[in-house]
Amino acid sequence: MKVSVKVPATSANLGPGFDCLGLALPIYNTVTIDETVLPGTGVEINILAQDESYDDLIIDHIPRDENSIVYKAVELLYNSIGQTPSELKINIQTTIPVTRGLGSSAAVIVGALMAANHLLGEPADESAILSIATEIEGHPDNVTPAVVGGLVLSSMEDDGSILYRKIHWPDEWAIIVCIPDVELATEISRSVLPETVPLQDAVYNTKRMGMLIQAVNTVDDELMKAALSDKLHQPYRSKLVPWMDEISESIKHDDDILGCVLSGAGSAVLVVAKQSAVDKAKSKISEVMNNLNVKADIKSLKVENNGATIINA
Amino acid sequence: MKVSVKVPATSANLGPGFDCLGLALPIYNTVTIDETVLPGTGVEINILAQDESYDDLIIDHIPRDENSIVYKAVELLYNSIGQTPSELKINIQTTIPVTRGLGSSAAVIVGALMAANHLLGEPADESAILSIATEIEGHPDNVTPAVVGGLVLSSMEDDGSILYRKIHWPDEWAIIVCIPDVELATEISRSVLPETVPLQDAVYNTKRMGMLIQAVNTVDDELMKAALSDKLHQPYRSKLVPWMDEISESIKHDDDILGCVLSGAGSAVLVVAKQSAVDKAKSKISEVMNNLNVKADIKSLKVENNGATIINA
Repeated sequence: MKVSVKVPATSANLGPGFDCLGLALPIYNTVTIDETVLPGTGVEINILAQDESYDDLIIDHIPRDENSIVYKAVELLYNSIGQTPSELKINIQTTIPVTRGLGSSAAVIVGALMAANHLLGEPADESAILSIATEIEGHPDNVTPAVVGGLVLSSMEDDGSILYRKIHWPDEWAIIVCIPDVELATEISRSVLPETVPLQDAVYNTKRMGMLIQAVNTVDDELMKAALSDKLHQPYRSKLVPWMDEISESIKHDDDILGCVLSGAGSAVLVVAKQSAVDKAKSKISEVMNNLNVKADIKSLKVENNGATIINA
Repeated sequence: MKVSVKVPATSANLGPGFDCLGLALPIYNTVTIDETVLPGTGVEINILAQDESYDDLIIDHIPRDENSIVYKAVELLYNSIGQTPSELKINIQTTIPVTRGLGSSAAVIVGALMAANHLLGEPADESAILSIATEIEGHPDNVTPAVVGGLVLSSMEDDGSILYRKIHWPDEWAIIVCIPDVELATEISRSVLPETVPLQDAVYNTKRMGMLIQAVNTVDDELMKAALSDKLHQPYRSKLVPWMDEISESIKHDDDILGCVLSGAGSAVLVVAKQSAVDKAKSKISEVMNNLNVKADIKSLKVENNGATIINA
């Protein structure tokens, strides 16, 4: 048997929503697991990058042996029904850039889990898939939208379950993603975060998060503009991603461009703008990146409302 | 000329919403300003408590001279148009218990400001009233719902303006307020708060606040039950208000009772329950308070959707 699962990219945090908010985007990794291999072959992991320039990176970041997060995901799923993966060929076709904060690892984890789950006759339900994927990733903010699509608020609760809600993203708001040609490993980006923060900063994010959820529910431009701000992670990471503050500064006084936030742990940033202001936003971002002399892929993307999908079973 | 303004009680914080969320409740203070006094009389402040048992407290907590927050509010408003209050009689009729975390001071500040504003021909708009009241109170979380009613998310922005949104409170959810016969000065309750908090606690509240706003917008019982929790102020204050944790514990496994939170800085607590579970919630609260041997007024209240109102001009 052979099965392929297509999984969207995800942008976590989204301003105040550090470690709990994530958005699925229409860039995909596809994980195919093929059981029809000769006995004794073992587990073989192959990676095919659509964009060859990313090939080396992907090879670095997605190890192809039993230390791979892909292997770990498959193994955990097999283990959950008392089995061990023995002969499997796992092909990963990637178009999600790695080390950019776009959830490439969440996508391969989720793809591998769901493909293995399908091959085994779906022993794990959505909730089990989410818990296993979060266990590997550490946080549910990328894996949940990767599984269910859309804008998702999620939390790992005390009992290990993932409590989440999908929130409709307003059609009126466009997403522009700026993907710089700069690697930023999540571990480095996480290492600059403090263990404690001023109480006032905690209150700041709490308030902005409330504003953001209310703004999304009511399509409130003014409130969204005030909400897309953060004091818990972005300030500590801004030296690693200087374009973030520069883009924020360049759009600050434009009522049509609602905000600029770090995508995940960077290096990509995400700009939210009214649909009518997409071109204006793109050219502002472009100007900043040119001035900084950083090559970047700047594209407007719709939110992907579908999560991981079995495309070939 | 003579004018009276009736202002509702307010419960701030509401779980994760420390310093930014507040709810108006149908208990009122009324501030009357009378200009028709003899020249040379000066500013006279009288306080009339409906409940005589609170009389001494109110006299302690609302000074009746020029150091009074009431006088300060009136003075700031007169000053804003280049005048000084000279001959005025200010009567305050209170039914909101003081030092219980029910916004009694916000109510008298707002009442005094709005009455003075009316007498002066409305020189200050709502936004100016909110800014002046917040300047006196320090936070907008009580004054905003006192002015506009309902459930309100508010923030003092960098320019000193108050950005707020009123959010419809679901009719399906009842509020039960437990007002213990125990004073708790806001200053004491604030003094136990730390200056810094663990980053994880900041993330915790940010996430819960997102859940709360989503739950209120979609009348989602399960999500509200998970949302009504806090790590930024309640844990530090729990020793001052032991009934809070005890009530939380007693309702924890009841799906019909959605949560127990500190009202403002205490001593009152507020329980959110499905309408069908009001009696059950009251008797659970009552049992806890009896066991602790603390006298308390336990009542079910509807959210007051109207803010401060001129009732006699």
